[in-house]
Amino acid sequence: MSSNPVIAMLGRKLRLALVGGGPGSFIGPMHQLAALLDNRYELVAAALSSDPDKCRVGGQDLGLAPERSYASWQALLDGEKAHAAGADVVAIMTPNDSHFVIASAALARGFDVICDKPMTNTLNEAEQLHAAVASSGLIFCLTHNYTGYPLVRQARAMVEAGELGTIRLVQVEYVQGGNARENDLRRAQSWRHDSARGGPSLVMGDIGTHAHNLLRFITGLEVAEVAAEVGSIVPGHLVHDFAGAMLRLSNGARGSFWVTQAAAGVENGLRIRVSGSLGSLEWEQEIPQILRFKPMDDPAQTRTPNGPGTLPLAARSSRIKKGHPEGFPEAFANLYSDAAEAIAARRSGNTPDPLALHFPNARDGLLGVRFVTAVVQSSQANGSWVRLEN
Amino acid sequence: MSSNPVIAMLGRKLRLALVGGGPGSFIGPMHQLAALLDNRYELVAAALSSDPDKCRVGGQDLGLAPERSYASWQALLDGEKAHAAGADVVAIMTPNDSHFVIASAALARGFDVICDKPMTNTLNEAEQLHAAVASSGLIFCLTHNYTGYPLVRQARAMVEAGELGTIRLVQVEYVQGGNARENDLRRAQSWRHDSARGGPSLVMGDIGTHAHNLLRFITGLEVAEVAAEVGSIVPGHLVHDFAGAMLRLSNGARGSFWVTQAAAGVENGLRIRVSGSLGSLEWEQEIPQILRFKPMDDPAQTRTPNGPGTLPLAARSSRIKKGHPEGFPEAFANLYSDAAEAIAARRSGNTPDPLALHFPNARDGLLGVRFVTAVVQSSQANGSWVRLEN
Amino acid sequence: MSSNPVIAMLGRKLRLALVGGGPGSFIGPMHQLAALLDNRYELVAAALSSDPDKCRVGGQDLGLAPERSYASWQALLDGEKAHAAGADVVAIMTPNDSHFVIASAALARGFDVICDKPMTNTLNEAEQLHAAVASSGLIFCLTHNYTGYPLVRQARAMVEAGELGTIRLVQVEYVQGGNARENDLRRAQSWRHDSARGGPSLVMGDIGTHAHNLLRFITGLEVAEVAAEVGSIVPGHLVHDFAGAMLRLSNGARGSFWVTQAAAGVENGLRIRVSGSLGSLEWEQEIPQILRFKPMDDPAQTRTPNGPGTLPLAARSSRIKKGHPEGFPEAFANLYSDAAEAIAARRSGNTPDPLALHFPNARDGLLGVRFVTAVVQSSQANGSWVRLEN
Amino acid sequence: MSSNPVIAMLGRKLRLALVGGGPGSFIGPMHQLAALLDNRYELVAAALSSDPDKCRVGGQDLGLAPERSYASWQALLDGEKAHAAGADVVAIMTPNDSHFVIASAALARGFDVICDKPMTNTLNEAEQLHAAVASSGLIFCLTHNYTGYPLVRQARAMVEAGELGTIRLVQVEYVQGGNARENDLRRAQSWRHDSARGGPSLVMGDIGTHAHNLLRFITGLEVAEVAAEVGSIVPGHLVHDFAGAMLRLSNGARGSFWVTQAAAGVENGLRIRVSGSLGSLEWEQEIPQILRFKPMDDPAQTRTPNGPGTLPLAARSSRIKKGHPEGFPEAFANLYSDAAEAIAARRSGNTPDPLALHFPNARDGLLGVRFVTAVVQSSQANGSWVRLEN
Repeated sequence: MSSNPVIAMLGRKLRLALVGGGPGSFIGPMHQLAALLDNRYELVAAALSSDPDKCRVGGQDLGLAPERSYASWQALLDGEKAHAAGADVVAIMTPNDSHFVIASAALARGFDVICDKPMTNTLNEAEQLHAAVASSGLIFCLTHNYTGYPLVRQARAMVEAGELGTIRLVQVEYVQGGNARENDLRRAQSWRHDSARGGPSLVMGDIGTHAHNLLRFITGLEVAEVAAEVGSIVPGHLVHDFAGAMLRLSNGARGSFWVTQAAAGVENGLRIRVSGSLGSLEWEQEIPQILRFKPMDDPAQTRTPNGPGTLPLAARSSRIKKGHPEGFPEAFANLYSDAAEAIAARRSGNTPDPLALHFPNARDGLLGVRFVTAVVQSSQANGSWVRLEN
Repeated sequence: MSSNPVIAMLGRKLRLALVGGGPGSFIGPMHQLAALLDNRYELVAAALSSDPDKCRVGGQDLGLAPERSYASWQALLDGEKAHAAGADVVAIMTPNDSHFVIASAALARGFDVICDKPMTNTLNEAEQLHAAVASSGLIFCLTHNYTGYPLVRQARAMVEAGELGTIRLVQVEYVQGGNARENDLRRAQSWRHDSARGGPSLVMGDIGTHAHNLLRFITGLEVAEVAAEVGSIVPGHLVHDFAGAMLRLSNGARGSFWVTQAAAGVENGLRIRVSGSLGSLEWEQEIPQILRFKPMDDPAQTRTPNGPGTLPLAARSSRIKKGHPEGFPEAFANLYSDAAEAIAARRSGNTPDPLALHFPNARDGLLGVRFVTAVVQSSQANGSWVRLEN
Repeated sequence: MSSNPVIAMLGRKLRLALVGGGPGSFIGPMHQLAALLDNRYELVAAALSSDPDKCRVGGQDLGLAPERSYASWQALLDGEKAHAAGADVVAIMTPNDSHFVIASAALARGFDVICDKPMTNTLNEAEQLHAAVASSGLIFCLTHNYTGYPLVRQARAMVEAGELGTIRLVQVEYVQGGNARENDLRRAQSWRHDSARGGPSLVMGDIGTHAHNLLRFITGLEVAEVAAEVGSIVPGHLVHDFAGAMLRLSNGARGSFWVTQAAAGVENGLRIRVSGSLGSLEWEQEIPQILRFKPMDDPAQTRTPNGPGTLPLAARSSRIKKGHPEGFPEAFANLYSDAAEAIAARRSGNTPDPLALHFPNARDGLLGVRFVTAVVQSSQANGSWVRLEN
Repeated sequence: MSSNPVIAMLGRKLRLALVGGGPGSFIGPMHQLAALLDNRYELVAAALSSDPDKCRVGGQDLGLAPERSYASWQALLDGEKAHAAGADVVAIMTPNDSHFVIASAALARGFDVICDKPMTNTLNEAEQLHAAVASSGLIFCLTHNYTGYPLVRQARAMVEAGELGTIRLVQVEYVQGGNARENDLRRAQSWRHDSARGGPSLVMGDIGTHAHNLLRFITGLEVAEVAAEVGSIVPGHLVHDFAGAMLRLSNGARGSFWVTQAAAGVENGLRIRVSGSLGSLEWEQEIPQILRFKPMDDPAQTRTPNGPGTLPLAARSSRIKKGHPEGFPEAFANLYSDAAEAIAARRSGNTPDPLALHFPNARDGLLGVRFVTAVVQSSQANGSWVRLEN
């Protein structure tokens, strides 16, 4: 049996074009690596940067033909559309305010799209883009990459299989320290600190949407109501650096939500606990190769990727046998590779494996933007409960 | 130099009388052990139970003279008051609704008092008791025992010493699973599930006050405002089993608060994270011998009791050299032993070591009851922010 | 039912006399605390030190009558023997070279004995003392205190119950850093660094015997053969500071043994792993409230004191419900309290609970000294395998 | 500045041919992934299997041109040698007994070589291959992949920088459970259980060489003498499943060595502790994103990839900022990518970055085979100390 469903279905790898993520970017190399890891994509084109030097050097590093290293995303979309062996898929990793226009244009030209989160900065754009994806019939993958970790998928599968019983309580938090320093000029000059580009709430767009998506992915529940406070705690910050919220979930479960980028010294503390009537799960991103499961009446368990009790969704998300930790790049690659499988199936008229369809999509993106909007709205209304459309 | 300040000041151990905590109690044996551990108290009398058999057997186990094993707390207070070598101190570990009347009566007769938390069930009682303690000049120690852990005290001392800079963010949670089972008849019959005895909010009185006290103890800050939801999530529960809240602290810092006894499978997850402008601290009760400190620009540290960097308040709270973990009983004993030092100083006209005066007192108890009250009030007002008197 | 078997059997607590452990000692306060913790002993007499001032101050701190604070162990044994309510039990915590003579004298006068490890410095003394205990009919408890931890006892009970299957492999190590410093004058002046007093191999007597005892306690196996190297690695050390060995156990299982006090920065790293045909156990002293069990085909488990799956020997070794960690003092106290139960049974003609009889005894002490001897012998024979008498 | 030194030096990626690792292999996909991850290699040819079907399907999955999916390694070497744009590098991941002949033939034809460990089964072959590499001037990279972890490299760099002082003690172990089952027919039929193919000592070749290499890599020391026992503990095993040893290192430091594949339930427990005169390091493969450093007199530290204190060798071995764990595949890829840099430099006449030259080479392979040989020899001589040539 083939281990590469894209080649099996299309007879070749998918051709990928990158928009954004040039030299100096954090997330650009991650997208590239995620695309290459499982040998399902070939990098054929890029508009890496608005800086022509970065475009050139970055394109060389990627091994692109010079003429397919474009100076703008518009030129890329046009050029690849016209190319006989042009890109199949466009991956967008530009500042948040440009996701909408680039993704919309890519979809309009028939490209499948992989897009960084948050999907858009405004609710209006999110709704339009969600509708555009739906009407296009194309694949849209939003890189809420933490849902690609094997044990996050194991957690989801355990909840789905009823191993936790009825979900009652969720605590999710995302604690970072990258924005803790006062008078951090380098950061202050980043597009993230310009709300016109970074969006209405930096902390919510950057990491709050990840926390929200993780909760939804694992529990299968929606946030029905939220009461929140969002603001800035570091002196001099003009953008939000913390948000706290209480949650009422769609089945009546309750939750606590806490995100900040101002926790000095903390690295990347995304963490979730889910309690059901039969037991509790605990996972944290900094040690993603461990999932703790505490059944009500049996000894606590430490689940590992491909260890005993691994369910199919998790098993397909690991490349190696147990005891050999995979990391953040592989989690990211799981989204790319699942999307590749879906795209190849669409393009070849095949039915994809249903387990390949767990990558976040435009609906997840829309719900994320709605959640950001509701958090801000509740905070402005002094913490009143706000009901969300789901 | 003496290692037993009580004997050094009084020439003898303190004489302790116990009220409550008879056979079958969880907390009774812990109080007894805490009193004995450092050889500062002699158990001389008890009114262990309203059940005469438990009184008798329990008194024997403690090695009490039969006539000092009393059938009621009233008889104990009268008998010990009249005894030539009567108790100096009365320790109260009865159901919550009786703390007020017993403590008040003990103070009125001139006994120093050690009392289980919450101090009282009602705000009115708390205010009266707080005033009675103040006017009595006696020692009142409230057993928020988690503040006795060496590394909790180390955390407080580090904050006081400015090692974290300005405190900005606090996340405190207390997650247990003891009340997660539906139709748990044994529990349902406990006094804790009778709100007349257990108080207006089981989860808040039982563990919410611990979380609140821990936050105050470590940060030195007060809760200025709270927006909360408290309720029950387990079907059939008539008492509260979860509470979530957002906090605004007295210096403008922000906090997240989450407590529940309905997290199936979780043992005793009291956990706090404190972030200041210079770094972050993390501590959890289930592994109390570790305190993580993450300075903003240096490698993360693992602090241990009596390990490098130990500050005086923590050093005096450990009995053994580094690498030999002490536990919950020693933390509990630290409160008893510090209170003993304060009581012996008072009785002998000495000045106690200021480091001995960090045990929780009646003001802490009053603020705890005010916090419970405010959480309930905010929840009833659909999460509105409620300002607290401090 | 009584919770204090000593009072239940004798109608009073046991009367304990201490030899050694005066002010400034590490282990003295631990013995005292361990004796007091469960209210089964009353401290009635002591010969704390060869320094009269330390005797006096130490005696006062313990609340002893001045005339029972003796200037020498000989005076103590005579005085308590003659006293109408004299001590029942003598606890010895003097330098290693005096254990033999004091214990022998105490046994000869009819005292039950609790003695610090190693039992003796020489094999000849160990054999004599072992014989003396046997012929006396008295209780002899050797404080290999690490066997008192609830989860060490759980490990033993799980092995006994067959939960690991046939034991095949054991790795035990005891790594400390207390002796890592060159030119450590304070240490060099300690009796431990004088081999006439500290014994033929400091590292083996101090901690090697603990590691050996722990292995035997958990597995129920004896060391049949050993090939070893023992020596000193820190420049200037005249005493052994490391030992490594390969082990062949009595059932054919194989083992690795590694102990050192020269690992700079390490606190108190006693650690054991045991693998059987059905799974593996892992325990380490620095986090004693966790026992990892890895069944061959099921998810790894984290066992906790009084958590699910707790076996009777472990259950009786915890004082509190799950989630409330006990520590080193309670482990130490478990030995004292079990010995108290055995002593009270002997003195009252009762049969003790068989589960109370797991404290280390003179046979364990003898086997420990034999092991030290064999390690030294193998090392001197350039690592040849040496067979042990068991 | 270019982020892809291969393209910068050669103007293209390196062309890689694979020998072995076809469908069903564990290690094959890991080599493929490691080659692709950093975009420095293009997979152009393979002789994946002796099974023609596996060759065909596997070649398709890799996207190979059909004519470059060869039926034998001989055909591959000849075909690629003759091809105008033939492979630059041959990666060998066949059973151990064939490494020598394939690697020798590849070198003879001028290919650079990447080869799985152990380098060979016999000492004679190892010495010949080592000499052949030296005389060829070609690059030979041996995939002791654990040395690719960022924090293993950080450990090495810290030792090199003197942060541990003089190295005194090392404990290294590699504990797995994959070979713990009795009557494991599937395993018994593997080439690994055929000593003619798997080598003279399965456990030593499979994982003992990794442990030995890790010790040498981090400490920079050689094993000067070894006293060992190697054997099989699982009933029915015809191959070695455990080995224990005592080590004397080249600077006089002492070590303990323990490897087994018979520890039921254990996953992949490669673990090392190194103590020097200034502090100790601890690292374990199952949580590779943490390196513990315990300085003698300061709080213990937790080092993380790209966290504070990261030294250049570690920094170049991470792809992402701190808090985003990389795993086993990235560690493996670090070897491939460093080797690529060395190969590209050689082919382009450039000088490689000295930090790129830390991948294991033929000398490491030779010393590994010598160590296996010495362990077996010592064990056969009943644990006598055997001196190693270094």
